[in-house]
Amino acid sequence: MIRALAFDVFGTVVDWRSSVIAELDRFGARHGVERDWAAFADDWRAGYAPAMDRVRRGELPWTRIDDLHRARLVELLADRGIDVPDADVDELNRAWHRLEPWPDAVAGLTRLKQRHVITPLSNGNVSLLTNMAKHGGLPWDCVLSAEIFRHYKPDPETYLGCADILDVAPAELMMVAAHPSDLRAARAAGLATAFVYRPAEFGPDRTPDRPGPDEFDMLVDDFSGLADRLGV
Amino acid sequence: MIRALAFDVFGTVVDWRSSVIAELDRFGARHGVERDWAAFADDWRAGYAPAMDRVRRGELPWTRIDDLHRARLVELLADRGIDVPDADVDELNRAWHRLEPWPDAVAGLTRLKQRHVITPLSNGNVSLLTNMAKHGGLPWDCVLSAEIFRHYKPDPETYLGCADILDVAPAELMMVAAHPSDLRAARAAGLATAFVYRPAEFGPDRTPDRPGPDEFDMLVDDFSGLADRLGV
Repeated sequence: MIRALAFDVFGTVVDWRSSVIAELDRFGARHGVERDWAAFADDWRAGYAPAMDRVRRGELPWTRIDDLHRARLVELLADRGIDVPDADVDELNRAWHRLEPWPDAVAGLTRLKQRHVITPLSNGNVSLLTNMAKHGGLPWDCVLSAEIFRHYKPDPETYLGCADILDVAPAELMMVAAHPSDLRAARAAGLATAFVYRPAEFGPDRTPDRPGPDEFDMLVDDFSGLADRLGV
Repeated sequence: MIRALAFDVFGTVVDWRSSVIAELDRFGARHGVERDWAAFADDWRAGYAPAMDRVRRGELPWTRIDDLHRARLVELLADRGIDVPDADVDELNRAWHRLEPWPDAVAGLTRLKQRHVITPLSNGNVSLLTNMAKHGGLPWDCVLSAEIFRHYKPDPETYLGCADILDVAPAELMMVAAHPSDLRAARAAGLATAFVYRPAEFGPDRTPDRPGPDEFDMLVDDFSGLADRLGV
């Protein structure tokens, strides 16, 4: 029996790419600069995994995603020859607090919440996830994050820590994500797994593969489909 | 400027005493035993601070309130000569997950949430607070607990940890509580403080004093009054 659902957030619940591009467009208009903002967004996101790996290897102390995002942003702005005051960098960095949910997300979560505990389980820090939930109306029952476990996904401490703090067995917790690597690590830790196919996550030129129907416990196209499968 | 509000929960948001007495009444009816359930509830609650102190002194490892509650419950049932299966003890122990909000709490929090981040900051563990929010419809933006900081209130690590994880300065965080000791510790850590007077918390025979009007930053009679004072 599944008692709780833990959701990956970037790409699974929210459309980070369109949201960040829209924020960069507004930033550019405000500062009178034009760049390839889609490429900027992709490069920004691409800095994320290597930065977490530096923390994982002990080259950096525990660092919030907000701070990893900001360090990468400073590099990218310099690389593109854009010079703005620190307060504007801070404001732009908070674009990740204002990501828009996929169209099915709020209605689907509201439905799933009727019968299950629903929480994010994201590498995003708690304040980022909290502000994002307020911005987008995400009806989480609580807000769990890598920050609480002092380990990033896909470290097993995150999945097991999530089950432990929710006081459920790993098999009673279902990880919901649009990324096979996240779900494989969750499954290795003993969690149930649901893949949500989000073909638009990486933009029109890079459509992720749809996994095979048997690779995870459930394979759905949106959160409404997940609610159907869970019989909510 | 106050950006976030952290709420004590037992007694401040929920009426633990009436709720626990009602649960004990039902437990007694189910098992065909009659006892002074009000006294039982008070004795149960009275075990809480000494148990936390044992953890604080290092005599016990970090322990969830659920487990402290259960250990005390087992003692009290034995003391009253009540013998029931373990599963019934577990079920009764979860009475603390089903505490009823004070009548003004849900509407007041919903109003406060429009302009502030609202979170519990309770010694209750995360799953207890999450289940309680689901049960009572408490619209938290996130769920913070002593469990996350591995310190119980009134240790300063809880108040400072709460401000840090919400990414606000201590002075931008207001602690809301019905207990002067909690607020004094929050103030010593640099937080703003709001006292909510809950004269019925300890039952008809033990009415707490109302603090002086200047002891804390705000003194209100319910969460609607707090929203008024904060100009929401």
